[in-house]
Amino acid sequence: MKLPLHPEFLTHSKGDTFLLAISGGRDSVALLHSLLEHGYDKLVLCHVNHRLRAADSEQDAAWVEDLAKRFDLPCELTSVDVASVAESRQQSIELAARNTRHQFFSRCAVQHHCHCVLLAHHADDQAETILFNLLRGSGGLKGMDHASQHEIDGVSLQFLRPLLQTTRSDIDAYIQQQHISYREDHSNAQAVATRNRLRNEALPLLEDIMGRNVKPALVRAAAIAQSTQQSLQEVLQGYELEDPQGRLYLPTLASLSPALRQMAVHDYLQKHQVAEISSDLITRCLSLIEDSSIAKVNLPQDRYFRRKEKRLFIDSSPSHPSCE
Amino acid sequence: MKLPLHPEFLTHSKGDTFLLAISGGRDSVALLHSLLEHGYDKLVLCHVNHRLRAADSEQDAAWVEDLAKRFDLPCELTSVDVASVAESRQQSIELAARNTRHQFFSRCAVQHHCHCVLLAHHADDQAETILFNLLRGSGGLKGMDHASQHEIDGVSLQFLRPLLQTTRSDIDAYIQQQHISYREDHSNAQAVATRNRLRNEALPLLEDIMGRNVKPALVRAAAIAQSTQQSLQEVLQGYELEDPQGRLYLPTLASLSPALRQMAVHDYLQKHQVAEISSDLITRCLSLIEDSSIAKVNLPQDRYFRRKEKRLFIDSSPSHPSCE
Repeated sequence: MKLPLHPEFLTHSKGDTFLLAISGGRDSVALLHSLLEHGYDKLVLCHVNHRLRAADSEQDAAWVEDLAKRFDLPCELTSVDVASVAESRQQSIELAARNTRHQFFSRCAVQHHCHCVLLAHHADDQAETILFNLLRGSGGLKGMDHASQHEIDGVSLQFLRPLLQTTRSDIDAYIQQQHISYREDHSNAQAVATRNRLRNEALPLLEDIMGRNVKPALVRAAAIAQSTQQSLQEVLQGYELEDPQGRLYLPTLASLSPALRQMAVHDYLQKHQVAEISSDLITRCLSLIEDSSIAKVNLPQDRYFRRKEKRLFIDSSPSHPSCE
Repeated sequence: MKLPLHPEFLTHSKGDTFLLAISGGRDSVALLHSLLEHGYDKLVLCHVNHRLRAADSEQDAAWVEDLAKRFDLPCELTSVDVASVAESRQQSIELAARNTRHQFFSRCAVQHHCHCVLLAHHADDQAETILFNLLRGSGGLKGMDHASQHEIDGVSLQFLRPLLQTTRSDIDAYIQQQHISYREDHSNAQAVATRNRLRNEALPLLEDIMGRNVKPALVRAAAIAQSTQQSLQEVLQGYELEDPQGRLYLPTLASLSPALRQMAVHDYLQKHQVAEISSDLITRCLSLIEDSSIAKVNLPQDRYFRRKEKRLFIDSSPSHPSCE
């Protein structure tokens, strides 16, 4: 039995080198074994000791080092007192831990001339992420991508998630069948309380109520939503929305359907680095199309979304004498 | 304080007659009061005694009859042993109850020459519906529409939900402030177990985990999803996908983005009354576009989705000698 890897991941050459983020827990160890079985054996194991669980954390690091030796793979280790970092930067432990890992990956990337980092997120993690994003109101069904680009400390990293379509129970079965040993994951409950509660309380309750595994439904719904968004984006690119000065041309915008208008304004605000683009802000910006009594909408950081001569654009001067 | 009604509902004339589905419970009684306050006073109260709670059910019916007298409104009552109907038809009690209500509404519609039925679903019901549809895997974020068309026993009915944007807590506040009396709703827990558990167990747990009211996020996400779907539908209508014989023209279909292709095939199958259009079936149908070694895909009820001469269409002959 092989653990299946994401079809997009399998388009990578087996000669490529990858950094593998490895905690020593079940998921990342299963990913290591599966990669080797699929012939991806140019791997650098990268382990962060977050020092959140005293001796346990030290043992995890030593265990990963042994694992690397056993497979004759290079291994990078770092040890950071994440709790202190979090306190000094007034961040959550979760955020400080993530930043620490990302900075470490960017150093490893430079050192090993390798910008692909493999993460062991699986389909059950994906379902949790989708539910979490939906419930916190980020506007819809959004999961993790198999591949995502990040710029960290001036270094470009590509995160890849080869197990994103593999369920937790498939990983369990694989671990059992292959007699693979791993470190029990005693993750810091405080740091990831919300995610852990979604996993351990909410999803089991929802599955009990519905009498079925709801995770595939969540994953499929998010995939459909993403494909729909992409299609709209493609449709939008077919319109010449901006004039040569990069301003939105109002008559073209007004000819679009409501969802396309929303997306066009959202993309425009995002392109101009407007922070916190809420659906409420977009609605107010869209009012400039239909309500000729309004000529500007306040944006964060003393900027304005403004209508002038059938164009919509962003500027930072508070008054504009010749506005419509 | 007035309870706000859906802006689309407010476009109806105050001279129109409406059938009002009224259980006697808090939501439908609040809707009655709010309609009268807004000047919609041509109402026919329609109450179904489902006989699921013995004396309680009888008292509900008598209470609604009194209420109608108090406001001098016509009242239609029916009494159906829904449990027996469910048993004899081998349906769930929930489904038998809904069918009973719909048949009753269609009789009332004919009798009163009025085809609009007002239902008291509110924003919290909407959040439950969205979560329910998402979790049962119907493919995304779908809620109830403010207005929906139904054909029941040959009678066209329009269901309207004037409280669909009003929260349960707004209704509570209104009921309290106006000292409105209503019948406590002891709904049959067995019949609506799943919905009740989503309301009473799942949503409170999710809100506790997230530390916020998650219902507005669900409702907003579904509204965005719906608006996105509508936009794609509009975009799709701009293509001439079908030839004069009503077959899908393959080169045009192949020129579309994945989500548009999916939607086009979904709509085509739906138009031709294909039952149970799963995402898996759509994927198989789409394979006819790219894989020239496949010429047909099996559909339910001995029909086939077939490729021939750059056209895709449905037919029911098992073999087709001249297929590509």
